[in-house]
Amino acid sequence: MFAPLADGKRAAGLPFGATQGSKLVVHARGLQNREPGFESRLPCLKFHTVYRTFNTERRREFVRITEDVEDAVREAGIQEGMVLVAAMHITAAVWINDDEPGLQADTLEWLDKIAPPSWKEPDGETARDLLPNAGDYRHHRGGEDNGDAHLKNLLVHHQVIVPVTDGRLDLGPWQQVFYCEFDGGRPKRLVIKVMGE
Amino acid sequence: MFAPLADGKRAAGLPFGATQGSKLVVHARGLQNREPGFESRLPCLKFHTVYRTFNTERRREFVRITEDVEDAVREAGIQEGMVLVAAMHITAAVWINDDEPGLQADTLEWLDKIAPPSWKEPDGETARDLLPNAGDYRHHRGGEDNGDAHLKNLLVHHQVIVPVTDGRLDLGPWQQVFYCEFDGGRPKRLVIKVMGE
Amino acid sequence: MFAPLADGKRAAGLPFGATQGSKLVVHARGLQNREPGFESRLPCLKFHTVYRTFNTERRREFVRITEDVEDAVREAGIQEGMVLVAAMHITAAVWINDDEPGLQADTLEWLDKIAPPSWKEPDGETARDLLPNAGDYRHHRGGEDNGDAHLKNLLVHHQVIVPVTDGRLDLGPWQQVFYCEFDGGRPKRLVIKVMGE
Repeated sequence: MFAPLADGKRAAGLPFGATQGSKLVVHARGLQNREPGFESRLPCLKFHTVYRTFNTERRREFVRITEDVEDAVREAGIQEGMVLVAAMHITAAVWINDDEPGLQADTLEWLDKIAPPSWKEPDGETARDLLPNAGDYRHHRGGEDNGDAHLKNLLVHHQVIVPVTDGRLDLGPWQQVFYCEFDGGRPKRLVIKVMGE
Repeated sequence: MFAPLADGKRAAGLPFGATQGSKLVVHARGLQNREPGFESRLPCLKFHTVYRTFNTERRREFVRITEDVEDAVREAGIQEGMVLVAAMHITAAVWINDDEPGLQADTLEWLDKIAPPSWKEPDGETARDLLPNAGDYRHHRGGEDNGDAHLKNLLVHHQVIVPVTDGRLDLGPWQQVFYCEFDGGRPKRLVIKVMGE
Repeated sequence: MFAPLADGKRAAGLPFGATQGSKLVVHARGLQNREPGFESRLPCLKFHTVYRTFNTERRREFVRITEDVEDAVREAGIQEGMVLVAAMHITAAVWINDDEPGLQADTLEWLDKIAPPSWKEPDGETARDLLPNAGDYRHHRGGEDNGDAHLKNLLVHHQVIVPVTDGRLDLGPWQQVFYCEFDGGRPKRLVIKVMGE
Protein backbone atom coordinates (compact mmCIF):
# COMPACT_ATOMS: atom_id res chain seq x y z
CA MET A 1 0.00 0.00 0.00
CA PHE A 2 1.17 3.50 -0.65
CA ALA A 3 -0.28 6.96 -0.49
CA PRO A 4 -1.15 8.51 -3.86
CA LEU A 5 1.21 11.27 -4.86
CA ALA A 6 1.03 14.46 -6.82
CA ASP A 7 3.15 13.86 -9.87
CA GLY A 8 4.61 17.08 -11.10
CA LYS A 9 1.68 19.16 -9.90
CA ARG A 10 2.67 22.61 -8.71
CA ALA A 11 1.42 23.31 -5.20
CA ALA A 12 -1.32 25.77 -4.46
CA GLY A 13 1.02 28.30 -2.86
CA LEU A 14 -0.55 29.80 0.21
CA PRO A 15 0.58 33.28 1.14
CA PHE A 16 3.02 33.52 4.03
CA GLY A 17 2.30 37.19 4.48
CA ALA A 18 -0.82 39.01 3.36
CA THR A 19 -0.65 38.51 -0.40
CA GLN A 20 -1.20 35.45 -2.56
CA GLY A 21 1.87 33.77 -4.02
CA SER A 22 5.55 34.13 -3.31
CA LYS A 23 7.24 36.98 -1.52
CA LEU A 24 9.92 38.64 -3.57
CA VAL A 25 12.97 40.55 -2.42
CA VAL A 26 15.51 41.70 -4.99
CA HIS A 27 19.02 42.58 -3.93
CA ALA A 28 20.60 43.51 -7.23
CA ARG A 29 23.21 46.22 -6.92
CA GLY A 30 23.93 48.37 -9.97
CA LEU A 31 26.91 50.46 -10.96
CA GLN A 32 25.06 53.52 -12.22
CA ASN A 33 27.03 56.08 -10.21
CA ARG A 34 30.01 57.44 -12.07
CA GLU A 35 30.80 60.54 -9.98
CA PRO A 36 34.13 60.69 -8.08
CA GLY A 37 34.31 58.03 -5.43
CA PHE A 38 31.93 55.66 -7.16
CA GLU A 39 34.41 52.83 -6.86
CA SER A 40 34.05 52.72 -3.09
CA ARG A 41 30.42 51.90 -3.64
CA LEU A 42 31.15 49.06 -6.06
CA PRO A 43 30.06 45.64 -4.93
CA CYS A 44 32.87 44.22 -2.86
CA LEU A 45 32.88 40.45 -2.83
CA LYS A 46 34.19 39.12 0.44
CA PHE A 47 35.42 35.72 1.49
CA HIS A 48 35.86 34.82 5.11
CA THR A 49 37.12 31.44 6.24
CA VAL A 50 36.91 30.18 9.81
CA TYR A 51 38.15 26.85 11.09
CA ARG A 52 36.78 25.26 14.24
CA THR A 53 38.30 22.30 16.01
CA PHE A 54 36.14 19.95 18.08
CA ASN A 55 37.35 17.41 20.56
CA THR A 56 34.18 15.92 22.00
CA GLU A 57 34.24 14.07 25.32
CA ARG A 58 31.84 11.41 24.06
CA ARG A 59 32.36 9.24 21.01
CA ARG A 60 29.16 10.60 19.46
CA GLU A 61 27.78 14.07 20.06
CA PHE A 62 25.54 16.69 18.44
CA VAL A 63 27.08 20.13 18.94
CA ARG A 64 25.05 23.21 18.10
CA ILE A 65 27.10 25.60 15.97
CA THR A 66 24.46 28.08 14.71
CA GLU A 67 26.14 30.82 16.75
CA ASP A 68 29.57 30.04 15.27
CA VAL A 69 28.10 30.38 11.78
CA GLU A 70 26.40 33.66 12.75
CA ASP A 71 29.71 34.94 14.17
CA ALA A 72 31.51 34.15 10.91
CA VAL A 73 28.89 36.07 8.90
CA ARG A 74 29.11 39.08 11.24
CA GLU A 75 32.91 39.06 11.05
CA ALA A 76 32.75 38.94 7.25
CA GLY A 77 30.48 41.97 7.30
CA ILE A 78 28.33 40.77 4.41
CA GLN A 79 24.66 41.54 3.84
CA GLU A 80 23.96 39.04 1.03
CA GLY A 81 25.57 35.73 0.24
CA MET A 82 25.98 32.14 1.31
CA VAL A 83 27.86 30.28 4.04
CA LEU A 84 29.26 26.83 3.51
CA VAL A 85 29.61 24.75 6.68
CA ALA A 86 31.52 21.51 6.11
CA ALA A 87 33.08 18.82 8.27
CA MET A 88 36.69 18.26 7.20
CA HIS A 89 36.51 14.65 8.41
CA ILE A 90 34.83 11.62 6.94
CA THR A 91 33.32 10.30 10.17
CA ALA A 92 31.44 13.49 11.14
CA ALA A 93 28.57 15.46 9.59
CA VAL A 94 26.76 18.78 9.53
CA TRP A 95 23.00 18.72 10.04
CA ILE A 96 20.29 21.36 10.14
CA ASN A 97 17.39 20.37 12.34
CA ASP A 98 15.55 21.03 15.58
CA ASP A 99 17.51 21.62 18.80
CA GLU A 100 15.45 19.09 20.72
CA PRO A 101 17.17 16.42 22.87
CA GLY A 102 14.45 13.80 22.27
CA LEU A 103 14.83 14.13 18.52
CA GLN A 104 18.60 13.83 18.79
CA ALA A 105 18.30 10.66 20.89
CA ASP A 106 15.78 9.26 18.36
CA THR A 107 18.16 10.08 15.52
CA LEU A 108 21.22 8.47 17.07
CA GLU A 109 19.30 5.31 18.03
CA TRP A 110 17.97 5.13 14.47
CA LEU A 111 21.39 5.79 12.90
CA ASP A 112 22.80 2.92 14.97
CA LYS A 113 20.13 0.61 13.53
CA ILE A 114 20.63 1.76 9.93
CA ALA A 115 24.43 2.08 10.02
CA PRO A 116 25.33 -0.29 12.86
CA PRO A 117 28.61 0.00 14.79
CA SER A 118 30.53 -3.25 15.17
CA TRP A 119 32.02 -2.10 18.50
CA LYS A 120 28.75 -2.80 20.32
CA GLU A 121 25.90 -5.30 20.17
CA PRO A 122 23.55 -4.73 17.21
CA ASP A 123 20.33 -3.00 18.26
CA GLY A 124 17.78 -5.47 16.86
CA GLU A 125 17.53 -7.85 13.93
CA THR A 126 17.68 -5.20 11.23
CA ALA A 127 20.94 -3.77 12.61
CA ARG A 128 22.35 -7.32 12.81
CA ASP A 129 21.41 -7.89 9.17
CA LEU A 130 22.88 -4.55 8.04
CA LEU A 131 26.31 -5.35 9.50
CA PRO A 132 28.86 -6.51 6.89
CA ASN A 133 28.43 -10.11 5.71
CA ALA A 134 32.15 -10.75 6.15
CA GLY A 135 31.73 -10.46 9.94
CA ASP A 136 33.12 -6.95 10.29
CA TYR A 137 33.72 -3.89 8.14
CA ARG A 138 36.50 -4.46 5.61
CA HIS A 139 37.62 -0.95 6.53
CA HIS A 140 38.63 -2.30 9.97
CA ARG A 141 41.40 -4.46 8.51
CA GLY A 142 43.71 -1.49 9.00
CA GLY A 143 42.98 -1.34 12.73
CA GLU A 144 40.07 1.13 12.65
CA ASP A 145 36.72 0.50 14.33
CA ASN A 146 34.75 3.41 12.84
CA GLY A 147 33.23 1.88 9.69
CA ASP A 148 29.73 2.80 10.91
CA ALA A 149 30.77 6.45 11.32
CA HIS A 150 31.66 6.60 7.61
CA LEU A 151 28.15 5.38 6.76
CA LYS A 152 26.59 7.90 9.16
CA ASN A 153 28.62 10.64 7.44
CA LEU A 154 27.07 9.46 4.17
CA LEU A 155 23.53 9.45 5.60
CA VAL A 156 23.61 12.82 7.37
CA HIS A 157 25.90 14.43 4.77
CA HIS A 158 29.04 16.35 5.62
CA GLN A 159 27.96 19.85 4.66
CA VAL A 160 25.22 22.46 4.35
CA ILE A 161 24.97 25.86 2.67
CA VAL A 162 23.09 28.53 4.58
CA PRO A 163 21.75 31.59 2.72
CA VAL A 164 22.56 35.03 4.14
CA THR A 165 19.94 37.77 3.62
CA ASP A 166 20.05 41.26 5.13
CA GLY A 167 23.12 40.25 7.13
CA ARG A 168 21.46 37.30 8.84
CA LEU A 169 21.30 33.53 8.41
CA ASP A 170 18.13 32.99 6.38
CA LEU A 171 16.91 29.97 8.33
CA GLY A 172 13.41 28.86 9.28
CA PRO A 173 12.19 29.27 12.87
CA TRP A 174 13.27 25.80 14.03
CA GLN A 175 16.41 25.35 11.96
CA GLN A 176 19.63 25.08 13.95
CA VAL A 177 23.02 24.02 12.60
CA PHE A 178 24.76 21.06 14.27
CA TYR A 179 28.17 19.51 14.03
CA CYS A 180 27.51 15.76 14.36
CA GLU A 181 30.39 13.78 15.75
CA PHE A 182 30.30 10.01 15.15
CA ASP A 183 33.88 9.14 16.11
CA GLY A 184 35.06 11.73 18.60
CA GLY A 185 37.47 11.98 21.46
CA ARG A 186 40.14 13.47 19.21
CA PRO A 187 40.60 16.87 17.51
CA LYS A 188 38.54 17.20 14.33
CA ARG A 189 38.10 20.23 12.12
CA LEU A 190 35.19 22.06 10.53
CA VAL A 191 35.39 24.82 7.92
CA ILE A 192 32.94 27.73 7.74
CA LYS A 193 33.33 29.71 4.52
CA VAL A 194 31.38 32.92 3.95
CA MET A 195 31.01 34.33 0.42
CA GLY A 196 29.04 37.48 -0.33
CA GLU A 197 29.00 41.24 -0.19
CA MET B 1 29.54 -11.22 -1.57
CA PHE B 2 30.24 -7.85 -3.05
CA ALA B 3 31.12 -6.47 -6.45
CA PRO B 4 34.78 -5.52 -6.92
CA LEU B 5 35.33 -1.78 -7.08
CA ALA B 6 37.71 0.60 -8.77
CA ASP B 7 39.74 2.12 -5.96
CA GLY B 8 40.88 5.56 -6.95
CA LYS B 9 41.05 4.74 -10.62
CA ARG B 10 40.15 7.66 -12.87
CA ALA B 11 37.42 6.79 -15.32
CA ALA B 12 38.00 6.46 -19.00
CA GLY B 13 36.15 9.67 -19.85
CA LEU B 14 34.09 9.25 -22.98
CA PRO B 15 33.51 12.36 -25.05
CA PHE B 16 30.08 13.91 -24.77
CA GLY B 17 30.63 15.93 -27.91
CA ALA B 18 33.01 15.11 -30.74
CA THR B 19 36.34 15.34 -28.93
CA GLN B 20 37.98 13.08 -26.40
CA GLY B 21 37.99 14.22 -22.76
CA SER B 22 36.09 16.94 -20.97
CA LYS B 23 34.27 19.84 -22.52
CA LEU B 24 35.48 23.19 -21.28
CA VAL B 25 33.67 26.50 -21.15
CA VAL B 26 35.35 29.45 -19.47
CA HIS B 27 33.29 32.38 -18.29
CA ALA B 28 35.96 34.62 -16.79
CA ARG B 29 35.21 38.30 -17.17
CA GLY B 30 38.16 40.70 -17.15
CA LEU B 31 38.46 44.39 -16.34
CA GLN B 32 40.81 45.39 -19.15
CA ASN B 33 38.72 48.27 -20.47
CA ARG B 34 39.62 51.60 -18.91
CA GLU B 35 37.97 54.00 -21.37
CA PRO B 36 35.05 56.16 -20.13
CA GLY B 37 32.09 54.03 -19.16
CA PHE B 38 34.11 50.93 -18.35
CA GLU B 39 32.49 50.68 -14.95
CA SER B 40 29.12 49.84 -16.46
CA ARG B 41 30.73 46.74 -17.88
CA LEU B 42 32.23 45.66 -14.57
CA PRO B 43 30.97 42.37 -13.25
CA CYS B 44 27.83 43.08 -11.27
CA LEU B 45 27.17 40.46 -8.65
CA LYS B 46 23.47 40.01 -8.05
CA PHE B 47 21.52 38.36 -5.27
CA HIS B 48 17.87 37.53 -5.65
CA THR B 49 15.86 35.90 -2.89
CA VAL B 50 12.43 34.37 -3.40
CA TYR B 51 10.29 32.74 -0.74
CA ARG B 52 7.59 30.22 -1.60
CA THR B 53 4.95 28.98 0.82
CA PHE B 54 3.42 25.54 0.39
CA ASN B 55 0.28 24.25 2.05
CA THR B 56 -0.19 20.79 0.63
CA GLU B 57 -3.55 19.06 0.80
CA ARG B 58 -2.01 15.69 1.63
CA ARG B 59 0.30 14.99 4.53
CA ARG B 60 3.04 13.91 2.14
CA GLU B 61 3.52 15.26 -1.35
CA PHE B 62 6.20 15.73 -4.01
CA VAL B 63 5.76 19.15 -5.65
CA ARG B 64 7.73 19.99 -8.77
CA ILE B 65 9.39 23.39 -8.43
CA THR B 66 11.84 23.44 -11.35
CA GLU B 67 9.81 26.25 -12.96
CA ASP B 68 9.89 28.32 -9.76
CA VAL B 69 13.67 28.02 -9.68
CA GLU B 70 13.87 28.96 -13.38
CA ASP B 71 11.64 31.98 -12.72
CA ALA B 72 13.91 33.17 -9.91
CA VAL B 73 16.97 32.94 -12.16
CA ARG B 74 15.21 34.86 -14.94
CA GLU B 75 14.07 37.56 -12.53
CA ALA B 76 17.62 37.89 -11.20
CA GLY B 77 18.84 38.41 -14.74
CA ILE B 78 22.07 36.47 -14.25
CA GLN B 79 23.98 34.49 -16.84
CA GLU B 80 26.41 32.67 -14.56
CA GLY B 81 26.07 31.62 -10.94
CA MET B 82 24.37 29.25 -8.55
CA VAL B 83 20.91 28.89 -7.04
CA LEU B 84 20.37 27.55 -3.56
CA VAL B 85 16.98 25.90 -3.00
CA ALA B 86 16.32 25.08 0.65
CA ALA B 87 13.36 24.00 2.74
CA MET B 88 13.03 26.31 5.75
CA HIS B 89 11.39 23.51 7.74
CA ILE B 90 12.84 20.41 9.35
CA THR B 91 10.17 17.98 8.19
CA ALA B 92 10.41 18.72 4.45
CA ALA B 93 13.15 18.30 1.85
CA VAL B 94 14.36 19.34 -1.58
CA TRP B 95 15.17 16.59 -4.06
CA ILE B 96 16.43 16.49 -7.62
CA ASN B 97 15.24 13.44 -9.50
CA ASP B 98 12.98 12.14 -12.25
CA ASP B 99 9.42 13.47 -12.58
CA GLU B 100 7.94 9.99 -12.76
CA PRO B 101 4.94 9.04 -10.59
CA GLY B 102 6.01 5.38 -10.21
CA LEU B 103 9.40 6.43 -8.89
CA GLN B 104 7.82 8.82 -6.43
CA ALA B 105 5.47 6.11 -5.14
CA ASP B 106 8.45 3.72 -4.83
CA THR B 107 10.38 6.36 -2.93
CA LEU B 108 7.64 7.19 -0.45
CA GLU B 109 6.93 3.50 0.24
CA TRP B 110 10.66 2.94 0.80
CA LEU B 111 11.03 6.04 3.00
CA ASP B 112 8.17 4.72 5.16
CA LYS B 113 10.05 1.46 5.62
CA ILE B 114 13.39 3.12 6.40
CA ALA B 115 12.05 6.01 8.48
CA PRO B 116 8.73 4.60 9.72
CA PRO B 117 5.86 6.83 10.89
CA SER B 118 4.33 5.85 14.21
CA TRP B 119 0.93 7.23 13.17
CA LYS B 120 0.26 4.19 10.98
CA GLU B 121 1.00 0.45 11.03
CA PRO B 122 4.63 -0.36 10.20
CA ASP B 123 5.04 -1.58 6.61
CA GLY B 124 6.81 -4.90 7.25
CA GLU B 125 9.24 -6.31 9.80
CA THR B 126 12.11 -3.97 8.99
CA ALA B 127 9.93 -0.90 9.52
CA ARG B 128 8.70 -2.40 12.82
CA ASP B 129 12.29 -2.92 13.90
CA LEU B 130 13.37 0.59 12.88
CA LEU B 131 10.72 2.24 15.05
CA PRO B 132 12.07 3.60 18.36
CA ASN B 133 12.74 0.95 21.02
CA ALA B 134 10.94 3.07 23.63
CA GLY B 135 7.64 2.43 21.81
CA ASP B 136 7.39 5.80 20.13
CA TYR B 137 9.66 8.66 19.10
CA ARG B 138 10.96 10.60 22.13
CA HIS B 139 10.27 13.69 20.03
CA HIS B 140 6.53 12.96 20.41
CA ARG B 141 6.59 13.62 24.15
CA GLY B 142 5.82 17.25 23.32
CA GLY B 143 2.64 16.30 21.47
CA GLU B 144 4.09 15.99 17.95
CA ASP B 145 3.60 12.94 15.70
CA ASN B 146 6.10 13.80 12.97
CA GLY B 147 9.30 12.12 14.22
CA ASP B 148 9.52 10.12 10.98
CA ALA B 149 9.38 13.34 8.92
CA HIS B 150 12.53 14.61 10.66
CA LEU B 151 14.32 11.40 9.64
CA LYS B 152 13.03 11.70 6.07
CA ASN B 153 14.35 15.28 6.01
CA LEU B 154 17.74 13.85 7.02
CA LEU B 155 17.63 11.14 4.33
CA VAL B 156 16.50 13.28 1.41
CA HIS B 157 18.38 16.39 2.61
CA HIS B 158 16.81 19.80 2.90
CA GLN B 159 18.63 21.61 0.11
CA VAL B 160 20.26 21.55 -3.31
CA ILE B 161 22.46 23.97 -5.25
CA VAL B 162 21.77 24.23 -8.96
CA PRO B 163 24.44 25.68 -11.28
CA VAL B 164 23.39 28.44 -13.70
CA THR B 165 25.19 28.56 -17.06
CA ASP B 166 24.31 30.86 -19.98
CA GLY B 167 21.26 32.05 -18.05
CA ARG B 168 19.76 28.57 -17.61
CA LEU B 169 19.63 25.90 -14.92
CA ASP B 170 22.52 23.58 -15.79
CA LEU B 171 20.64 20.35 -15.12
CA GLY B 172 20.78 16.97 -16.85
CA PRO B 173 17.95 15.89 -19.15
CA TRP B 174 15.95 14.06 -16.46
CA GLN B 175 16.71 16.27 -13.48
CA GLN B 176 13.72 18.06 -11.98
CA VAL B 177 13.64 19.90 -8.66
CA PHE B 178 11.03 18.82 -6.09
CA TYR B 179 9.83 20.19 -2.81
CA CYS B 180 9.15 17.08 -0.71
CA GLU B 181 6.56 17.53 1.99
CA PHE B 182 6.54 14.94 4.78
CA ASP B 183 4.30 16.70 7.28
CA GLY B 184 1.99 18.99 5.33
CA GLY B 185 -1.46 20.45 5.64
CA ARG B 186 -0.04 23.70 7.02
CA PRO B 187 1.91 26.61 5.52
CA LYS B 188 5.62 25.86 5.13
CA ARG B 189 8.31 27.96 3.51
CA LEU B 190 11.05 27.41 0.99
CA VAL B 191 13.85 29.84 0.09
CA ILE B 192 15.34 30.17 -3.41
CA LYS B 193 18.49 32.26 -3.41
CA VAL B 194 20.19 33.20 -6.68
CA MET B 195 23.80 34.44 -6.65
CA GLY B 196 25.68 35.36 -9.83
CA GLU B 197 26.19 37.92 -12.54
CA MET C 1 18.90 2.05 25.01
CA PHE C 2 20.54 5.12 23.68
CA ALA C 3 23.61 7.18 24.49
CA PRO C 4 22.93 10.49 26.24
CA LEU C 5 23.47 13.48 24.00
CA ALA C 6 24.59 17.04 24.40
CA ASP C 7 21.54 19.13 23.64
CA GLY C 8 22.59 22.47 22.30
CA LYS C 9 25.82 22.51 24.27
CA ARG C 10 28.68 24.23 22.45
CA ALA C 11 31.75 22.03 22.25
CA ALA C 12 34.90 22.75 24.15
CA GLY C 13 36.89 23.69 21.05
CA LEU C 14 40.38 22.33 21.22
CA PRO C 15 43.05 24.27 19.38
CA PHE C 16 44.15 22.85 16.06
CA GLY C 17 47.24 25.03 16.07
CA ALA C 18 48.92 26.52 19.11
CA THR C 19 46.19 28.82 20.39
CA GLN C 20 42.89 28.13 22.11
CA GLY C 21 39.68 28.47 20.05
CA SER C 22 39.11 28.77 16.35
CA LYS C 23 41.66 29.72 13.75
CA LEU C 24 40.65 32.74 11.71
CA VAL C 25 41.70 33.76 8.22
CA VAL C 26 40.04 36.75 6.59
CA HIS C 27 40.14 37.14 2.84
CA ALA C 28 38.18 40.35 2.38
CA ARG C 29 39.43 42.47 -0.50
CA GLY C 30 38.80 46.20 -0.33
CA LEU C 31 38.66 48.88 -2.99
CA GLN C 32 40.68 51.55 -1.23
CA ASN C 33 43.09 52.25 -4.09
CA ARG C 34 41.87 55.00 -6.39
CA GLU C 35 45.11 55.85 -8.24
CA PRO C 36 45.30 55.16 -11.99
CA GLY C 37 45.01 51.47 -12.72
CA PHE C 38 43.03 50.65 -9.61
CA GLU C 39 40.38 48.93 -11.66
CA SER C 40 42.78 46.16 -12.67
CA ARG C 41 43.06 45.31 -9.01
CA LEU C 42 39.31 45.17 -8.47
CA PRO C 43 37.92 41.83 -7.46
CA CYS C 44 37.19 39.89 -10.62
CA LEU C 45 34.55 37.27 -10.15
CA LYS C 46 35.17 34.27 -12.34
CA PHE C 47 33.00 31.37 -13.37
CA HIS C 48 34.45 28.27 -14.91
CA THR C 49 32.33 25.33 -16.00
CA VAL C 50 33.73 21.92 -16.86
CA TYR C 51 31.73 18.90 -18.00
CA ARG C 52 33.05 15.38 -17.61
CA THR C 53 31.54 12.31 -19.22
CA PHE C 54 31.92 8.89 -17.61
CA ASN C 55 31.26 5.56 -19.23
CA THR C 56 32.18 3.02 -16.59
CA GLU C 57 32.92 -0.58 -17.54
CA ARG C 58 31.09 -1.93 -14.50
CA ARG C 59 27.49 -1.22 -13.59
CA ARG C 60 28.59 0.31 -10.30
CA GLU C 61 31.88 2.08 -9.73
CA PHE C 62 33.47 4.68 -7.46
CA VAL C 63 35.67 6.97 -9.56
CA ARG C 64 38.03 9.37 -7.82
CA ILE C 65 37.68 12.85 -9.30
CA THR C 66 39.56 15.03 -6.78
CA GLU C 67 42.19 15.79 -9.42
CA ASP C 68 39.54 16.82 -11.97
CA VAL C 69 38.11 19.28 -9.44
CA GLU C 70 41.62 20.60 -8.68
CA ASP C 71 42.26 21.02 -12.40
CA ALA C 72 39.06 23.05 -12.82
CA VAL C 73 40.07 25.37 -9.97
CA ARG C 74 43.56 25.86 -11.40
CA GLU C 75 42.14 26.58 -14.87
CA ALA C 76 39.75 29.13 -13.37
CA GLY C 77 42.69 30.85 -11.72
CA ILE C 78 40.80 31.71 -8.54
CA GLN C 79 42.24 32.05 -5.06
CA GLU C 80 38.99 32.17 -3.07
CA GLY C 81 35.59 30.68 -3.82
CA MET C 82 33.58 27.50 -4.06
CA VAL C 83 33.32 24.59 -6.49
CA LEU C 84 30.07 22.79 -7.11
CA VAL C 85 30.46 19.18 -8.25
CA ALA C 86 27.17 17.62 -9.36
CA ALA C 87 26.08 14.49 -11.17
CA MET C 88 23.78 15.42 -14.06
CA HIS C 89 22.06 12.04 -13.80
CA ILE C 90 19.58 10.69 -11.30
CA THR C 91 21.18 7.28 -10.86
CA ALA C 92 24.67 8.50 -9.91
CA ALA C 93 26.06 10.51 -6.99
CA VAL C 94 29.00 12.56 -5.77
CA TRP C 95 30.56 11.58 -2.47
CA ILE C 96 33.42 12.91 -0.36
CA ASN C 97 35.09 10.21 1.70
CA ASP C 98 38.20 8.11 2.14
CA ASP C 99 39.94 6.57 -0.87
CA GLU C 100 40.06 3.13 0.72
CA PRO C 101 38.93 0.05 -1.23
CA GLY C 102 37.64 -1.79 1.85
CA LEU C 103 35.42 1.15 2.77
CA GLN C 104 34.08 1.33 -0.76
CA ALA C 105 33.26 -2.37 -0.77
CA ASP C 106 31.56 -1.98 2.64
CA THR C 107 29.56 0.94 1.33
CA LEU C 108 28.34 -0.77 -1.83
CA GLU C 109 27.36 -3.93 0.06
CA TRP C 110 25.47 -1.78 2.58
CA LEU C 111 23.79 0.33 -0.13
CA ASP C 112 22.57 -2.90 -1.75
CA LYS C 113 20.98 -3.93 1.55
CA ILE C 114 19.38 -0.52 2.20
CA ALA C 115 18.34 0.25 -1.39
CA PRO C 116 18.13 -3.24 -2.91
CA PRO C 117 18.39 -3.89 -6.65
CA SER C 118 15.68 -6.12 -8.10
CA TRP C 119 18.04 -7.40 -10.80
CA LYS C 120 19.80 -9.67 -8.31
CA GLU C 121 18.93 -11.77 -5.27
CA PRO C 122 18.31 -9.66 -2.14
CA ASP C 123 21.29 -9.71 0.23
CA GLY C 124 19.57 -10.86 3.42
CA GLU C 125 16.16 -10.50 5.03
CA THR C 126 16.29 -6.72 5.45
CA ALA C 127 17.03 -6.20 1.76
CA ARG C 128 14.18 -8.59 0.90
CA ASP C 129 11.85 -6.57 3.12
CA LEU C 130 12.98 -3.23 1.67
CA LEU C 131 12.14 -4.25 -1.90
CA PRO C 132 8.83 -2.84 -3.17
CA ASN C 133 5.71 -4.58 -1.86
CA ALA C 134 4.25 -4.75 -5.36
CA GLY C 135 6.97 -7.27 -6.33
CA ASP C 136 9.16 -4.84 -8.24
CA TYR C 137 9.77 -1.10 -8.48
CA ARG C 138 6.83 0.71 -10.08
CA HIS C 139 9.51 2.68 -11.95
CA HIS C 140 10.33 -0.51 -13.88
CA ARG C 141 6.96 -0.55 -15.63
CA GLY C 142 8.55 1.54 -18.38
CA GLY C 143 11.23 -1.08 -19.03
CA GLU C 144 13.92 0.23 -16.66
CA ASP C 145 15.68 -1.94 -14.04
CA ASN C 146 17.48 0.83 -12.12
CA GLY C 147 14.96 1.74 -9.39
CA ASP C 148 17.56 0.96 -6.71
CA ALA C 149 20.04 3.38 -8.34
CA HIS C 150 17.55 6.25 -7.88
CA LEU C 151 17.36 5.41 -4.16
CA LYS C 152 21.16 5.23 -3.92
CA ASN C 153 21.34 8.68 -5.59
CA LEU C 154 19.00 9.90 -2.84
CA LEU C 155 21.10 8.33 -0.07
CA VAL C 156 24.54 9.44 -1.24
CA HIS C 157 23.28 12.76 -2.68
CA HIS C 158 24.09 13.98 -6.16
CA GLN C 159 26.32 16.93 -5.30
CA VAL C 160 28.91 18.52 -3.06
CA ILE C 161 30.34 22.02 -2.70
CA VAL C 162 34.07 22.24 -2.01
CA PRO C 163 35.52 25.46 -0.55
CA VAL C 164 38.56 26.98 -2.29
CA THR C 165 41.07 28.83 -0.08
CA ASP C 166 44.45 30.20 -1.21
CA GLY C 167 43.91 28.61 -4.60
CA ARG C 168 43.46 25.07 -3.25
CA LEU C 169 40.58 22.74 -2.41
CA ASP C 170 40.02 23.29 1.31
CA LEU C 171 39.52 19.62 2.18
CA GLY C 172 40.53 17.62 5.22
CA PRO C 173 43.48 15.19 5.03
CA TRP C 174 41.38 12.14 4.14
CA GLN C 175 38.70 13.78 2.03
CA GLN C 176 38.64 12.71 -1.61
CA VAL C 177 35.89 13.46 -4.13
CA PHE C 178 34.23 10.51 -5.89
CA TYR C 179 31.82 10.15 -8.74
CA CYS C 180 29.61 7.21 -7.71
CA GLU C 181 28.08 5.31 -10.59
CA PHE C 182 25.10 3.09 -9.77
CA ASP C 183 23.84 2.38 -13.29
CA GLY C 184 26.80 2.64 -15.63
CA GLY C 185 27.95 1.17 -18.89
CA ARG C 186 26.69 4.22 -20.78
CA PRO C 187 27.86 7.85 -21.09
CA LYS C 188 26.83 9.99 -18.12
CA ARG C 189 27.73 13.59 -17.37
CA LEU C 190 29.03 15.49 -14.38
CA VAL C 191 29.30 19.27 -14.03
CA ILE C 192 32.08 21.04 -12.12
CA LYS C 193 31.33 24.74 -11.62
CA VAL C 194 33.92 27.04 -10.09
CA MET C 195 32.86 30.45 -8.72
CA GLY C 196 35.30 32.84 -7.08
CA GLU C 197 38.06 35.35 -7.62
